[in-house]
Amino acid sequence: MSAPKLRIESAGINGLWPMLPTPSKEGASDWRSRDTVDLDETARMVEALIEAGVDGLLSLGTYGECHSLTWDEKLAFVGCVMETIGGRIPFFAGTTALNTREVIAQTRAMHELGVSGTMLGVPMWCKNDVATAVQFYNDVSEACPDTAIMIYANSEAFKFEFPRPFWAQVGKLPQVVACKYLGIGLLAADLNLAPDIRFLTHEADYYAASRIAPDRMTAFWSSSALCGPRPALALRDAVAKAKVSGDWSNAKAIADRFQQCEQGLFPRGEFTEFSKFAVGLERGRMNAAGWVRIGDPRPPYHLVPAEYLEGASRSGRAYAAYHAELQQSGL
Amino acid sequence: MSAPKLRIESAGINGLWPMLPTPSKEGASDWRSRDTVDLDETARMVEALIEAGVDGLLSLGTYGECHSLTWDEKLAFVGCVMETIGGRIPFFAGTTALNTREVIAQTRAMHELGVSGTMLGVPMWCKNDVATAVQFYNDVSEACPDTAIMIYANSEAFKFEFPRPFWAQVGKLPQVVACKYLGIGLLAADLNLAPDIRFLTHEADYYAASRIAPDRMTAFWSSSALCGPRPALALRDAVAKAKVSGDWSNAKAIADRFQQCEQGLFPRGEFTEFSKFAVGLERGRMNAAGWVRIGDPRPPYHLVPAEYLEGASRSGRAYAAYHAELQQSGL
Amino acid sequence: MSAPKLRIESAGINGLWPMLPTPSKEGASDWRSRDTVDLDETARMVEALIEAGVDGLLSLGTYGECHSLTWDEKLAFVGCVMETIGGRIPFFAGTTALNTREVIAQTRAMHELGVSGTMLGVPMWCKNDVATAVQFYNDVSEACPDTAIMIYANSEAFKFEFPRPFWAQVGKLPQVVACKYLGIGLLAADLNLAPDIRFLTHEADYYAASRIAPDRMTAFWSSSALCGPRPALALRDAVAKAKVSGDWSNAKAIADRFQQCEQGLFPRGEFTEFSKFAVGLERGRMNAAGWVRIGDPRPPYHLVPAEYLEGASRSGRAYAAYHAELQQSGL
Amino acid sequence: MSAPKLRIESAGINGLWPMLPTPSKEGASDWRSRDTVDLDETARMVEALIEAGVDGLLSLGTYGECHSLTWDEKLAFVGCVMETIGGRIPFFAGTTALNTREVIAQTRAMHELGVSGTMLGVPMWCKNDVATAVQFYNDVSEACPDTAIMIYANSEAFKFEFPRPFWAQVGKLPQVVACKYLGIGLLAADLNLAPDIRFLTHEADYYAASRIAPDRMTAFWSSSALCGPRPALALRDAVAKAKVSGDWSNAKAIADRFQQCEQGLFPRGEFTEFSKFAVGLERGRMNAAGWVRIGDPRPPYHLVPAEYLEGASRSGRAYAAYHAELQQSGL
Repeated sequence: MSAPKLRIESAGINGLWPMLPTPSKEGASDWRSRDTVDLDETARMVEALIEAGVDGLLSLGTYGECHSLTWDEKLAFVGCVMETIGGRIPFFAGTTALNTREVIAQTRAMHELGVSGTMLGVPMWCKNDVATAVQFYNDVSEACPDTAIMIYANSEAFKFEFPRPFWAQVGKLPQVVACKYLGIGLLAADLNLAPDIRFLTHEADYYAASRIAPDRMTAFWSSSALCGPRPALALRDAVAKAKVSGDWSNAKAIADRFQQCEQGLFPRGEFTEFSKFAVGLERGRMNAAGWVRIGDPRPPYHLVPAEYLEGASRSGRAYAAYHAELQQSGL
Repeated sequence: MSAPKLRIESAGINGLWPMLPTPSKEGASDWRSRDTVDLDETARMVEALIEAGVDGLLSLGTYGECHSLTWDEKLAFVGCVMETIGGRIPFFAGTTALNTREVIAQTRAMHELGVSGTMLGVPMWCKNDVATAVQFYNDVSEACPDTAIMIYANSEAFKFEFPRPFWAQVGKLPQVVACKYLGIGLLAADLNLAPDIRFLTHEADYYAASRIAPDRMTAFWSSSALCGPRPALALRDAVAKAKVSGDWSNAKAIADRFQQCEQGLFPRGEFTEFSKFAVGLERGRMNAAGWVRIGDPRPPYHLVPAEYLEGASRSGRAYAAYHAELQQSGL
Repeated sequence: MSAPKLRIESAGINGLWPMLPTPSKEGASDWRSRDTVDLDETARMVEALIEAGVDGLLSLGTYGECHSLTWDEKLAFVGCVMETIGGRIPFFAGTTALNTREVIAQTRAMHELGVSGTMLGVPMWCKNDVATAVQFYNDVSEACPDTAIMIYANSEAFKFEFPRPFWAQVGKLPQVVACKYLGIGLLAADLNLAPDIRFLTHEADYYAASRIAPDRMTAFWSSSALCGPRPALALRDAVAKAKVSGDWSNAKAIADRFQQCEQGLFPRGEFTEFSKFAVGLERGRMNAAGWVRIGDPRPPYHLVPAEYLEGASRSGRAYAAYHAELQQSGL
Repeated sequence: MSAPKLRIESAGINGLWPMLPTPSKEGASDWRSRDTVDLDETARMVEALIEAGVDGLLSLGTYGECHSLTWDEKLAFVGCVMETIGGRIPFFAGTTALNTREVIAQTRAMHELGVSGTMLGVPMWCKNDVATAVQFYNDVSEACPDTAIMIYANSEAFKFEFPRPFWAQVGKLPQVVACKYLGIGLLAADLNLAPDIRFLTHEADYYAASRIAPDRMTAFWSSSALCGPRPALALRDAVAKAKVSGDWSNAKAIADRFQQCEQGLFPRGEFTEFSKFAVGLERGRMNAAGWVRIGDPRPPYHLVPAEYLEGASRSGRAYAAYHAELQQSGL
């Protein structure tokens, strides 16, 4: 394979990458709804994030409702994001779908819109074995040689553990420049297996990950940034400073504050239970924080137990308070 | 809700219902392929099954590649099946997709093509809780009031256990006339919870299910029929006779023969492992039997470990031999 | 291996086999308690079951607290049961433990006490593969050649799926005469793989299992018998009659009534959730029924969520009412 | 509860803690074997570890065969270890068993032998909920107020996820001074929930854990030390130096070497699969390294697939080579 001309390389993926939700107009949970994307709010949200200083954007993951938007809605949303960005920062759009050919079609269409790359999980009707998952990324890379791929490593959604042999193989594809990673339990090993990929952990793991592998960990994804971006920005900057100064105390304090703010988001403290309701819980959290107006989820994932939603809202209000604190202190 | 005018009611679902694969032209496993459906073979297969005497047809499940066909291919395939059937027997087409609105759009389009109903599982990006799954079928019923629904109860594919409270609730929807059921472990309880639904077990469970609840069990789905339909027809007729005569010895003997013929299909004897490779294994089994020419799977589920495929092929040859035996003996 | 002289053969295992709890004195949930077995109530319970007409007895399973009795308590309990039985009916005592040598020691000691055999699951610290599980039963058979083994096939407790290749291999050991089986989903296949074993299903599955394989299914285990034995006796007799007459309507009606009486026992309708609290739920059910005085569980399994316990108690009261009904009508 | 007089406090748990296997004499895998512990090799192994400079010892975990030793063997083994140590370093002996009262009896007996504390998991017949697990540690603490407890957090063995609410509650028991921890995915959160506990990660995670929380992470457990202790000692010392100097490059290089040496130990790269055969694989690894003569496992966990064993042996030889390298270079 000759070297592809990607719009973004792993070296260019750094800093804070909020994961965008897809704002919805009133009535979006009704199956009769059409054109549910609130484009005004989309533009406003993206502009506010860029002004605040984020480094890149992700979209069309689980709570961005990759699964539940119509194709026209996806095009409208991504078009609006691209236009608002105006080339200022990179942007990955999710194109996970039920099969290889559909993924390729969507990925090519998004490439036409100018996105930096795709955030891409594996088809999830059947559980993948490693050979199937690797072949899938091979096929997409071959079909879309100029599109950068950020592997979307969500084992609950995609029924796939993303085990070590997987990273060893996909890490060699030049199109695979990054992954949206979950947890840090196997991070050290996976980093070694895929030395050319940028691993983006969740913000709650970024401090820990940065200490494990300061040279490799330079970027993270964030959902809290949609409750107000200042905490995530503070985390980014504190870690960057610590790497230079060797004094990690401030970064640690921020990481601890993040853990407090996460309280309530995970029902019963379980990620598995959270994953069932991730769409409604993350969106509910953002609505409770009030920094953006996200609206209701599209069907089928619009029902959430009330007590779970209250837990998520508590987390949203905690992040909103943290954001306000930082704002007042001029950070 | 006023009573819908369904094309088929639960009382009309009886006998042998083969689950159709979607025959593919050469090269179907390549992501570059387009128009992969072998319509000639599709028509031949459907005609042969009707001539043999099957009672109804199912399609677009896991090995029918509901997940991996393009929309144009689905339309071509279903159109060809409908035309070949020519009104002689009922036919359910699968319309499971990633969200409610997409399912409704596909279900309405299939209804326009004249299908008897949809065989429908739940969206599988997030794991459903009962409330979400019930609301999903409610929404589809409301949107497609004249379309009969056969619930596609596959817990491996859809990450949903289809537990008792689910049946108690969806059993009340007038559109839900049947379910493609898996296993018999909870059958007796589920039958009681949903008294108006026709439960179709797999052929390998049909004898046992018929003994448990002879009045309720009058139909089953079959994949072996695509290795040659005579064994499945013999099973259907033997159970029907036993219900009248009270002598179940012949039905039992056929059920035992089915169990022998299934040997090898399930890698390590595990359904979980089978489910990963169900597309390739079922298609490989049919190709080995030689009664229809199914061709290769579409991507991404086209890779199967060689030893697994050999096990499935063994099962296919066993069914083919059984079919030939019955044919020679004039049954 | 020459044929052993077992105290019981598979042909001798028929009819209703209640699974005994181990009645406890006051304060049994306290870790300071010693000699917790209420031997008076044990003797009374066993005598009442024999007088009512049960065919055999099982003991020292999950809610019989095989795991949580001291060795002295086990000896006292089994000694009391043996003395009360006085040779009138067969009796299996559970000897599952953490390793092979301990199991052998316990099994030999129980054999000395004169029990008919052991009800035996696999050690559960590590998950067994098939080779390990088969070797375990081989070792015990070799060490205790005159002791009959009833395999205790509880996958939740023992982390083992008891898959088809397992049955094919242990079915050949002359000591393995029976199994306490769970569910019926794979029953037909497993029966074929182990033709010399008596499979005892749970009472709730006995009607269905008897219809699937009337010749093979002649015995079942029961926990409801401890809420009053008449319903289980009625089930036994109705199935036996149906096998002769061919009229299964009464047996079916009883099976349906059992399903109603089971309502509430399984929290959220899930066996997995039930298994966490099986000790407390089954014992609570019996205490609510009032036919025997079972007392509190030994530690560590003495805590049960109040709402779960209420569900189990509801089931206990339903069985007690059914028992009373049958008693009044002279059955 | 008045403050207990523990033999060891969390502040005293630092450095390298090898997890001891229990050396066996020839024929230990035979169920007929008695007195299987090779006490000469036990004494030699313990002496060699102390001379090499380890800081403490753990024993009677999974590959130490807590589950498969007789009580007399446990007493002989622990007695021999205690005598060899002669008060030079602390030592925890495992006392996990099937119920609370048995655990208390074993823990008290080990306390009489003078051990520093117990390494203790939860009973595993039934899956514990949080309330049950917490009550269990409460009960043991109450019964053995002067015995320090190291929680043995192995979710595969004990069917328990050790979730956040658990740590928040057991962290308050004064007897709970430490935990043998697995993974680092949730470490940061768990450290915050239980601020008074020393968390010992596995050696392969120690570098990463130390970077996440340098103040809290001062000890780790090791199995590689039984393949030759110099690599684990080098890791300990490099991390300690890095905490002072701020230069982590050497510690990182050693951690990377550990990851290379682990290659092959985990069949298919899966911890779940490893856990099935952990006894045989860890013992096989040590035997291949040749630093101690561990012998065969006791039944039932003595069978391991040959290819898995070869993978483990490869890891053992890699650690042995690393140990030899360090020895030659005088480290």
